[in-house]
Order: sequence, then structure tokens, then C-alpha cells
Amino acid sequence: MSEIKKLRAAVVGYGNIGRYTIEALEAAPDFEIAGVVRRDPSNVPYELRPYRVVSRIEELEDVDVAILCTPTRLVEATAQQILPLGIHTVDSFDIHTDILQLRKNLGETARAHGAVSVIASGWDPGSDSVVRTLMEAIVPKGITYTNFGPGMSMGHTVAVKAVAGVHKALSMTIPTGTGIHRRMVYIELEPGYKAEEVIQAIKSDAYFVHDETHVTVVDDVDQLIDMGHGVHMTRKGVSGTTQNQLLEFNMKINNPALTAQILVAVARATRRLAPGCYTMQEIPVIDLLPGEREHWIGKLC
Amino acid sequence: MSEIKKLRAAVVGYGNIGRYTIEALEAAPDFEIAGVVRRDPSNVPYELRPYRVVSRIEELEDVDVAILCTPTRLVEATAQQILPLGIHTVDSFDIHTDILQLRKNLGETARAHGAVSVIASGWDPGSDSVVRTLMEAIVPKGITYTNFGPGMSMGHTVAVKAVAGVHKALSMTIPTGTGIHRRMVYIELEPGYKAEEVIQAIKSDAYFVHDETHVTVVDDVDQLIDMGHGVHMTRKGVSGTTQNQLLEFNMKINNPALTAQILVAVARATRRLAPGCYTMQEIPVIDLLPGEREHWIGKLC
Repeated sequence: MSEIKKLRAAVVGYGNIGRYTIEALEAAPDFEIAGVVRRDPSNVPYELRPYRVVSRIEELEDVDVAILCTPTRLVEATAQQILPLGIHTVDSFDIHTDILQLRKNLGETARAHGAVSVIASGWDPGSDSVVRTLMEAIVPKGITYTNFGPGMSMGHTVAVKAVAGVHKALSMTIPTGTGIHRRMVYIELEPGYKAEEVIQAIKSDAYFVHDETHVTVVDDVDQLIDMGHGVHMTRKGVSGTTQNQLLEFNMKINNPALTAQILVAVARATRRLAPGCYTMQEIPVIDLLPGEREHWIGKLC
Repeated sequence: MSEIKKLRAAVVGYGNIGRYTIEALEAAPDFEIAGVVRRDPSNVPYELRPYRVVSRIEELEDVDVAILCTPTRLVEATAQQILPLGIHTVDSFDIHTDILQLRKNLGETARAHGAVSVIASGWDPGSDSVVRTLMEAIVPKGITYTNFGPGMSMGHTVAVKAVAGVHKALSMTIPTGTGIHRRMVYIELEPGYKAEEVIQAIKSDAYFVHDETHVTVVDDVDQLIDMGHGVHMTRKGVSGTTQNQLLEFNMKINNPALTAQILVAVARATRRLAPGCYTMQEIPVIDLLPGEREHWIGKLC
């Protein structure tokens, strides 16, 4: 690897995903960390001491790619600021229904400035999308079920926290098969609220109203939180005219660690893409790996 | 789909894979069958009556892509004849250790004639290689085990048939975990041969000498043959610095039906590739599907 110039990555946002992204970049043979961008650059935890921490990416030198570790709803605005600098962006934007529009919007900016943006690059959407696409191609007729969990849903947890009377919350996703999920919700109450009313408000929320949802009031939500997660994908269908082709993909993983590793692999692929905006399905998987293609064809083919 | 010109495919070679490839092409919305190339073009079974059957691909009109359904050892010579005609080729070449050299050789011819060749495009090598590559990218440290079967090994069966004294043969691959396989071999003897000597010769063959191998003499091998096969791939490893990330991919499938379907999907992808030779790892999975990328991003992302 030594003869190839390392990619210089900036980490934008420093929550859970940001922390694990720093670890994944440190473990990668072909990256340098250009620095970390966060709202309060005076907040420098121990593990960031070796790096520059700034409030604007323009303060960092020679950034090739920005890994966006902001909340999903800030991804588009953040990328729209960074791409015009000619800096590539990658993100794990996870609102499935908004991906096509984001690809269109960021694609226009990216092409105008000779930059590359790869969106929705976590594990779902992301690596699961690659597997779903491959499954659809090799078994074109049939049904794919994506069963999540057991594990913490970030989106559902945020939705619970927004309900009046909820102090802390955790929403666990429990797979019950064929893509149907149970929601197990654990909350701490704010003083002065009645459990029954808060529980009813949660169950009526758009995030929960269509799912079997159980809400439990507990003393200490923090004691329940574990960042393990999983997926169980199945497809049963037809290749050509041959029935009963059975495919399955499973993971049991640390959620932010996997997301961060995927972001780093996708950041690597930006250097082989023409300007524009892509999802992971549009990237040859071999370009997620460091070094030369021939090495990995020999090893993994 | 109707406004897009259909791809015209020729099927070259008409054994098991060729038969299933015709079925997969007939089921695909975006292909026309330009014809079938076989050694004896006067041999036209019922299912080929609608199509031209010829001995040389030059006799077919407007062929965009040739799907090579010949034995693996004829793939290179066949592709070297077809690529100079400006016709793309796809194959399911399956000698893992020779893939890099084949890619180099066919790549030179393909680039010289503005054609595309996609090699090693069955399920292993092929779709399994895509999954192995994705697994390596998202969990960079660790071990991947590919466990095949239970199912018939074409390569091992051919090797047994080549042993003196073997009339008919079947070699089944039985997974015993961690990528180790047992070989269950069933043979009919030629008259005048001693079972013990033939069995010893099979066990000493390079294909079997390193594996646990059991050979049984039977009256009728044909009664044992079933084209079901399977794979169980696992990877346990590290994302960033986080241990114990567990990934798994499983299939239970009709072997030639899956291979044929993959060949057709890969044939479709040739139209989006620059001249050269590729493995499936080098192709965006989305280009294995018909129609526009946006449709599949919306559906599968």
C-alpha cells in the first residue's frame, strides 16, 4: 500500500457513529484523518487529542472525503455545503423513501463541482441493499423479507423521546418473521405525567400505530441499552422457470461499529467514481476494499 | 421496458446450463434469443424449435452478447473467437486459481475489439464472490468460511469418470464446517475391473487425496442424481476495533438454474461496461437488473 497516497478523511459530527468512524479510519491501511468537524470544537475528548477538531471543514487541510456522522435529517444540508468545495461526501442517510430525491439533489451539486457523493451507506439502507439487489437479480421472481433485530431502533427511540412526558426511552425492534416487527418500548417518565396517558400517546404515534407495540415504564433506561443489532433476510423464488430457490442473509453485529466501517469502505470507493451521487448498489463491491482489484480477485473470487 | 431495444443473446453450448439459460432468457423482459450454437446443429430438441440452431455464431444475426455454456476448459478458446467479432461474452468459468489469468487474456482481446467479457459468473465463483467481497469490506479482519453442499460437484464427478474402470459416477460434496468437505462418491464399474483397485485410484486422485472420501459401488448412478445444491458462508470478525461481528449467507438452490439465471443477469450488465474483462465483483449489482437504476433504488434500497 505504501506507494499509494493515503486518502485524507474528515469526520463531520461526533456522536456514536463518529466515534466508531475514527476507530475504523485508524484501523484502515489507506486513510489519514484530516480532522473532526463538530459544533463545539473546544470539546475534545481524550481519543481525539491526536487530531484537529474544528467547527468548519474549510479549516482542515487537503480533505479528500468527508464522512458525515450527523443526524440523518442534517445530511442533505451538510453535504450541500461540502460538495461545492470539491470534497467527496459519504453518509448513512436512512430514510428509505427519501433516498431517490436525495440522490437527485446531491447529484446535481456533485456533478457541478467535480465531486462524488455516496448516500445511504450504512447497513440498511446500505450493505443490505446490495444483498437485496443481488438476490433479486439471481432469483428474479419471489418475495424478499427483511427482518430486523432484536436490536435498538434509533429512529423509533427518537420518536418516543419526542412524546410529552417521556424522560428517557429505548425502542427495541423484535422480528416476528415475514418482515413484521414488534416494538418493545422502555421509558422513564417525567414527573407529573400519568403512565397510561403517555403509553397511549406512544402507541398512537405514526412510528408505532401500525405495529404491535408494548410500552414498559422502568427506573433506568440506560441500564437496558446495548448496541447489538441484527438482520435476517430471506428470499424464496424462481430462477428462470425453476421454483423454490432459497436465499438467506443474516447478521448479528454492533450497530454503530458496522455503520462506521461501511462508511469508511464507501469513502474509499469515492476515488474510483465519476462525479455524481450514488447508492451502494451502484458501486462495484471490489472498490470497497483497499489496494488493487487483482489482489482481491485472486483472494475472494 | 418497451421503449428500450432488447438485447440479442446467443447461447453457445447446449448441455444442462444451456437448457436452463434458454428458460432464463425466455423469462427475462429485456432479451431476445438470437440463436443457439452447438457442435451438431442438426440436433434440435423440441424446446429449441422456435430458435435458429447453428454451428458457428457468425451465422446468427445481430448478436449483442454470447452466453458461453461450454465446459469450463473450452471457455477461453471460445471467448477468444467471439470477442473479435465485437460480441460481448459471459461465462461461468469455475477454476478459481485461473481466473486472474483468464481476465488478463480476455481483457486484451476485448479491449482490442471494443467488446466486454464478464467471467466466472456462476454462483461460486460469481454471486458468492460478490458476497465474500462485501463481507470482507464491512468486517475487514476475520475469517470467511465457504461451506458447499450437500450437492453434486461437477468438477469432482468429471474427475472420477476419468479414472480407469469407472463407467458412471457421481461425487457429492458434503460440508463438515469451517470450509472442510467430505466427498461421497458413487460409481458404476466397467466390466473386468476390481472395486478395491478402482476405489484406491479415486482416493489417490489429486481431486480427492486431501479430502475425506468415501466411494460406494452402486448399480445405477442415474437414480442418485439430483441437481439441488447449497452453500453456507460465514464470516466472524472485526469492524474497526469492534470484535464478534457475525455474518452469514446461505442458499439452497437448483444448481444449473441458478447458474443460468446469473449468466443472463450478467449478460444484461455488459451493456453498461467499458470494453474489457471483469469479474462479478467489479460490476455494480444494480446493473444485473433490467430497466432503469432509479426503479431499483426506490424498490430495494
